[in-house]
Amino acid sequence: MKFTLEAQDGRARAGTLETPHGRVKTPFFMVVGTAASVKGMTVAQLRGARCQVVLANTYHLAVRPGDEAVKARGGLARFMGWDGPTLTDSGGYQVFSLAKKRTITPDGVRFNNHIDGRELLLTPERAVSIQDNIGADIMMCLDECPPAKAGKDAIAASLARTHAWEERCLRAWRGGGGGGGGDGRALFGIAQGALFEDLRAESAAFLSGLDFPGYAIGGVAVGEETADIRRIVEFTAPLLPAEKPRYLMGVGTPADIIASVRAGVDMFDCVMPTRHARHFQAFTRDGAINLKNARYAEDDGPIEDGCDCEACRTVTRAYVRHLALLNELMASVWITLHNVRFYLRLMESLREAILAGTLATVAPTLYPAQDGAKG
Amino acid sequence: MKFTLEAQDGRARAGTLETPHGRVKTPFFMVVGTAASVKGMTVAQLRGARCQVVLANTYHLAVRPGDEAVKARGGLARFMGWDGPTLTDSGGYQVFSLAKKRTITPDGVRFNNHIDGRELLLTPERAVSIQDNIGADIMMCLDECPPAKAGKDAIAASLARTHAWEERCLRAWRGGGGGGGGDGRALFGIAQGALFEDLRAESAAFLSGLDFPGYAIGGVAVGEETADIRRIVEFTAPLLPAEKPRYLMGVGTPADIIASVRAGVDMFDCVMPTRHARHFQAFTRDGAINLKNARYAEDDGPIEDGCDCEACRTVTRAYVRHLALLNELMASVWITLHNVRFYLRLMESLREAILAGTLATVAPTLYPAQDGAKG
Repeated sequence: MKFTLEAQDGRARAGTLETPHGRVKTPFFMVVGTAASVKGMTVAQLRGARCQVVLANTYHLAVRPGDEAVKARGGLARFMGWDGPTLTDSGGYQVFSLAKKRTITPDGVRFNNHIDGRELLLTPERAVSIQDNIGADIMMCLDECPPAKAGKDAIAASLARTHAWEERCLRAWRGGGGGGGGDGRALFGIAQGALFEDLRAESAAFLSGLDFPGYAIGGVAVGEETADIRRIVEFTAPLLPAEKPRYLMGVGTPADIIASVRAGVDMFDCVMPTRHARHFQAFTRDGAINLKNARYAEDDGPIEDGCDCEACRTVTRAYVRHLALLNELMASVWITLHNVRFYLRLMESLREAILAGTLATVAPTLYPAQDGAKG
Repeated sequence: MKFTLEAQDGRARAGTLETPHGRVKTPFFMVVGTAASVKGMTVAQLRGARCQVVLANTYHLAVRPGDEAVKARGGLARFMGWDGPTLTDSGGYQVFSLAKKRTITPDGVRFNNHIDGRELLLTPERAVSIQDNIGADIMMCLDECPPAKAGKDAIAASLARTHAWEERCLRAWRGGGGGGGGDGRALFGIAQGALFEDLRAESAAFLSGLDFPGYAIGGVAVGEETADIRRIVEFTAPLLPAEKPRYLMGVGTPADIIASVRAGVDMFDCVMPTRHARHFQAFTRDGAINLKNARYAEDDGPIEDGCDCEACRTVTRAYVRHLALLNELMASVWITLHNVRFYLRLMESLREAILAGTLATVAPTLYPAQDGAKG
């Protein structure tokens, strides 16, 4: 997987990532399709919104329909009818989000899956082979994602375990089906260390020595304050190899993304645009608004002035508010179409500004620096 | 509203209906968008499926957002971002479907609405003025839709009331905002009479004398057997004025539609394509199939071979089955995209066959004569 840097503006970077399913312009945002489906959007709508990469979840796909089944159907991209680039996370996030359904051992994580309780043992080797079967262009190392509030000793112990797992993942990947990237696919390492800068530095240094095709910052947005997220991202991003793509996992608000691009991050994913839509929250460059609010009952404007999405080209705030009030299925679909395009437009604007060297002046116009619903 | 007959094949007819929002080729199927929204499809997807007319519900829109609100937003077509032809039913069907929430008086129907219990009094005059506000191209008379199992005396009494209401609707429409069709919009009469041929004949004769721009057959598909539906439609359709469009309300399965087109019906609506999709039922020319069925787990074919819909061009049965098993939102969306296009393709095929004079040989190839899930 080839990564080419095209421009820098401060620490922010613009580049191109070449995947087996096509070129991706960085920085980019991956739309989340946990079970190989983006909630509320067809593939044509994803293309219409100029989505570049779809992210799916290893744990969820391993449970249903099973990684062998995805492989038998031609792999993730073909299975979901999206013939574009994809990324799978490793299941490490479910160590955090499904904490009550799993046991951690030095060898890996044992889940009692959330659907039928059957056991799923995720070792580093198994995490790689599952992802190899699923067939995403970018795979992620198995890591442990501890809650932000854990103490330093617990975080340090978790980090040591994660590093051992990542070494095993890399070994498995190099010896595995893809032969360590000979097929153009990549395995990314994930730096952990919670809110402790010394642990983050240790993690970045350790992983940099392993020569992964790309690097992620994990363990962020798991319960900590915005200021802590920003501090850790700004601290960690520059410690990751400059010639490799940098991916901030699971973050975040448009303001978080703008700050993180400025810190040198190239890749993002987050459920916010799709999940917020299901709660009628729409993103605009003035902040998030809730379209169920009575103030929009007679608002004949689009969800966001100047937006080129399918929703803004078609329907009004008053109409979406009417649907939201009735809990009509299409309320969340229309807002999803807007929110996803909002995030993708944001990334396009950031990239253009980096290429033009105008990021410092452009960035503040794209979204309020402090999030918070505008109502 | 001008209706031009272009061809007949047996009793089946092909024609053109000119509405203020464009020409419609008959016979046609109206996709149901009860609350001014088709569940699971955007306007672009409706256009992509070559939908000609969307149907919305007077009662539901009168409750939320209110007919004055729809008018203030530019009327139904503009409100929902669909700038094409629309039809509103009169609320008469809710006399049947919301039987526990309404009281019938000679003057009209009093509803305690299903959302907040507030009273909605639907008189013939009010049904017309509400629909005039909503602004659909085709409005329907207020009628009473009695259950199929009611006795003949009750049906006869209901029919007399319905006829009185329809006369009042016609008078109100002629004296109202649209000036009785001077704006190109139409009011349709609705023939009732349940399963009694003499009452159906009486209703058709009475309404024919009133010179409506179009005529509907109502009170069908409210609990009776398929054979009775077919018998009543075949009996009633030829009794309605030949130079006016004929609309069979709320029917039905593809087999019902084929039989009814052959009986001389021009217009249809039904929730089946959208509602069945939410239960993972897909229509194919071999019958309906349930895509949650394990038999599709490894089926890499499209929902229906040869279908040109967005779903069949993109995803497989195995994939939709995976989503159905997880109750993922997009399972029903993909099947909706297919089912709606299936119905619209069916109508296109029927029209082509009528124009070519080949309906008798083509019709049996379009769907099994007897419905029933294929599994």
